Amino acid sequence: MPSPIEFYFDFASPYGYLAATQIDALAARHGRTVAWKPVLLGPILKHTGGQPNRAIPLRGPYMEADAPRFAAYLGVPFTAPAQWPIAALAPSRAVWWLADREPGKAHDLAAALYDAHWGRGEDIAAPEAVTRIAAGLGLPEAETAAAIQAPEVKDRLRAETEAAMAKGVFGSPFFRLDGEGFWGADRLDHLAWRLKAGAS
Amino acid sequence: MPSPIEFYFDFASPYGYLAATQIDALAARHGRTVAWKPVLLGPILKHTGGQPNRAIPLRGPYMEADAPRFAAYLGVPFTAPAQWPIAALAPSRAVWWLADREPGKAHDLAAALYDAHWGRGEDIAAPEAVTRIAAGLGLPEAETAAAIQAPEVKDRLRAETEAAMAKGVFGSPFFRLDGEGFWGADRLDHLAWRLKAGAS
Repeated sequence: MPSPIEFYFDFASPYGYLAATQIDALAARHGRTVAWKPVLLGPILKHTGGQPNRAIPLRGPYMEADAPRFAAYLGVPFTAPAQWPIAALAPSRAVWWLADREPGKAHDLAAALYDAHWGRGEDIAAPEAVTRIAAGLGLPEAETAAAIQAPEVKDRLRAETEAAMAKGVFGSPFFRLDGEGFWGADRLDHLAWRLKAGAS
Repeated sequence: MPSPIEFYFDFASPYGYLAATQIDALAARHGRTVAWKPVLLGPILKHTGGQPNRAIPLRGPYMEADAPRFAAYLGVPFTAPAQWPIAALAPSRAVWWLADREPGKAHDLAAALYDAHWGRGEDIAAPEAVTRIAAGLGLPEAETAAAIQAPEVKDRLRAETEAAMAKGVFGSPFFRLDGEGFWGADRLDHLAWRLKAGAS
């Protein structure tokens, strides 16, 4: 049984969203599964000395044109939210809360959150937005709300972000295939090429 | 007559080299020509507050693995030079010196310099390296050497870098197609997609 492809992303990242629309099908074509791992780019950028893309002169405006163009290239929905980048604490914690107890639902929640934020332009930073979207997957709102504030869930997100950095993750999306890193939605083709070569 | 695709690059950039191996054929498939425009990322990074990729924690080591992998993906030669990133003053000036008087030779020199630096891993920072490579294209060494030190050629490179920034160029490679920007060797597919859509 080959190990899952690790898919690291920040909900605030439009390129993470674009990758999220592709990675499951790509992996399935090569007999792989995907482990979805939300992380926070904030602490990671502190370590690398980077800035959020949107705050960088020239690059910010470019990204605002490039991300929707990339979505059109892939043929997936894209709506820029009114506010971005968000601090994605609540959505990321909700996913990690479910990761061990209901992995399938953790995946579906992550996909639903991404779709709401970048597919339809909804704000998903507030706990209320996350509990509402989780409710659509049958998760009681009070339980999700409590989980988002639980110290062990907060710790888990922090630990997962640290662990990602320790493995070389410095951006979103970032993939690890049997230990090899691939950064960016624009490396999906390279990932597929590596999977193909590895299978032959 | 459609306008040429503007191709901005720094000789120090491995991704600029990868793009250089592809862009002429890509443009030709869509009835376009390419204007090769060497610039210096140094002043541009000063403006955007960025760092050379290789100096960035986590990202530097990633790039050292990603650039040769990208070359293998494209099926083009790649040899990491002993020293990089270089300060690409001499090679960039030599290209701008020829740009108006012998545009075809300016293109061929740029391609030869890139191929020497990233295809074969040669150092091209020194004026002597540039004059030697230019001599291979029939350019007298003394003329090239003088041009590299000519104040008007130095000014030209500075002015072209400024002009690029004014048009939104912030990285290497960067393409402009009828005013629309595409950043990165990984945007060649998007550029081809746009050219195809524009032609229909």
